[in-house]
Amino acid sequence: LKVNEFDLIDLFTSYFRTRPPPRGPGDDAAYVPDLRNLCVTTDVIVENVHFERRFFSAEEIGHKALAVNLSDLAAMGAKPAWFLVSLCLPERTLESEIRGMALGMSRLARSLRIELVGGNVSKAGELSISICAAGTARRPLTRSGGRPGDVLYLSGTMGDARLGLKLLRASGGPRLNEPVRRQKRPHPRVRLGLIAARFARAAIDISDGFAQDLAHLCKASRLGAIVNVDRLPLSRGVRATFGAGAVDWALAGGEDYELLIAVAPSRATAFERECARVGEKITRVGQLTAARKILFQGAGGKSHTMPAGYDHFRPFD
Amino acid sequence: LKVNEFDLIDLFTSYFRTRPPPRGPGDDAAYVPDLRNLCVTTDVIVENVHFERRFFSAEEIGHKALAVNLSDLAAMGAKPAWFLVSLCLPERTLESEIRGMALGMSRLARSLRIELVGGNVSKAGELSISICAAGTARRPLTRSGGRPGDVLYLSGTMGDARLGLKLLRASGGPRLNEPVRRQKRPHPRVRLGLIAARFARAAIDISDGFAQDLAHLCKASRLGAIVNVDRLPLSRGVRATFGAGAVDWALAGGEDYELLIAVAPSRATAFERECARVGEKITRVGQLTAARKILFQGAGGKSHTMPAGYDHFRPFD
Repeated sequence: LKVNEFDLIDLFTSYFRTRPPPRGPGDDAAYVPDLRNLCVTTDVIVENVHFERRFFSAEEIGHKALAVNLSDLAAMGAKPAWFLVSLCLPERTLESEIRGMALGMSRLARSLRIELVGGNVSKAGELSISICAAGTARRPLTRSGGRPGDVLYLSGTMGDARLGLKLLRASGGPRLNEPVRRQKRPHPRVRLGLIAARFARAAIDISDGFAQDLAHLCKASRLGAIVNVDRLPLSRGVRATFGAGAVDWALAGGEDYELLIAVAPSRATAFERECARVGEKITRVGQLTAARKILFQGAGGKSHTMPAGYDHFRPFD
Repeated sequence: LKVNEFDLIDLFTSYFRTRPPPRGPGDDAAYVPDLRNLCVTTDVIVENVHFERRFFSAEEIGHKALAVNLSDLAAMGAKPAWFLVSLCLPERTLESEIRGMALGMSRLARSLRIELVGGNVSKAGELSISICAAGTARRPLTRSGGRPGDVLYLSGTMGDARLGLKLLRASGGPRLNEPVRRQKRPHPRVRLGLIAARFARAAIDISDGFAQDLAHLCKASRLGAIVNVDRLPLSRGVRATFGAGAVDWALAGGEDYELLIAVAPSRATAFERECARVGEKITRVGQLTAARKILFQGAGGKSHTMPAGYDHFRPFD
């Protein structure tokens, strides 16, 4: 395969008559034609791509399968409502593993009061779980709604999930600390997405890495951005592990299910206040620009080259 | 894995708070709470389970992935409207294969004027395509709506897809005749489903085999059935190949994306007339009964034991 993940999606969808996003492919979730307010997404996690069984318990697999879909809905500012599950199971799967996956997934579903409405199960050579999740949005928060001057916010911290994976691989087995928890039990920012739907113009989750997903948002909005590198929210773990290389690590990270949100300057204070009120951590990291390039500015104004984000079809450490 | 496909689904869903079907798991598609008229389903096809690449072209894989989902919507009497695609691709996948899958899928989508609204692509060890498809139904045609005395109809013929697979395996490569076409290019009975929605009380597709799916319909309706074995619509190919064993073969077949439909006696003539008018082939094969057992009656009234249907988790020739 010579094309990357996003060219591949473009190639595939070019065969179909589609509407522009979010009514057609190209945003975190689809805003469904003729069903006002419904956002739908699908995402899959595959053994040895998104998780390894030596590191993940069955509960963590079930949790992650649903969480990655809910993150897409959060990025659309949608309130998740229901989902369907496609379980692909190797014949060697144990009943206890099925119970574990169901338990991990159902805990997350219950905490958000969302309903399992259907699904299917199939035999397969490798374990994978594909989920289709849907919810309603007052108005869809797209990647394309940004305007020049919009303030860019990032939730939580970045680079942690990637660090968690590195730590798991280094130790060769399960252990639990904050980066590992971020890798194994991502927390979809559903509540923050609902706030963003009230205040923001555009949003995306940074599941493919901050740099790549910022580029997606900029491309969809036909804009560029200036990022204040020194402001990027890096956890102590990421800083301590990588020192001077921490920013590059974090920019290229993947699987941080945080939200990157663009807010009009006039709404920025109100947005920050509402996030503070409910305890959603956000950090102002830059702004959108009319110039269609992305600048990473560090201390003293020195610019920074942009690393590519996560792409399943390129090798990833 | 010690449990069969249906016990496994029950086990998994028992961890969730769900509504009874069709609002929760248990019918061909889910009838979504709070979105009147929307039916949603998900189904996956997996390499070496639902297709082998030595027999299936990329176009046929793309076609089948969508067709199996549309069959579920047809069984609900829903008019398909949109779908999402999860592509899981091995790294060795060729661009030409992606084009082929897109082409096969898009041809079927265009023929029914349905929209691709989103999806995702992931690396995987084996090729699989998971689709979530949705459509609207005037009223959902469930498995559970049958009443004693309802006339049972089956569309098309049965056992052909299973014969097609047998022929492909025997010849070791691609060939095209009617059973092989039924295996590789199943035709979802969308138009018939829409007619059934106007006339019928219950329906199911026989993707797991006539015997098994009839049992599902009977269980959901809390009824039994009498099947007139001599009336079962078997193709010339199935009769010629299996002779006296043709009925058993066909009853246990899987992947026949035909519809089994229960119609009140008072509506039977009108249903038959409407099917004849538009050229949808249906055959009266029996009736539902209050006694909760399934009788297969042959010539002279001799009864027939019931073979189990297709179960992914049991060996299948």
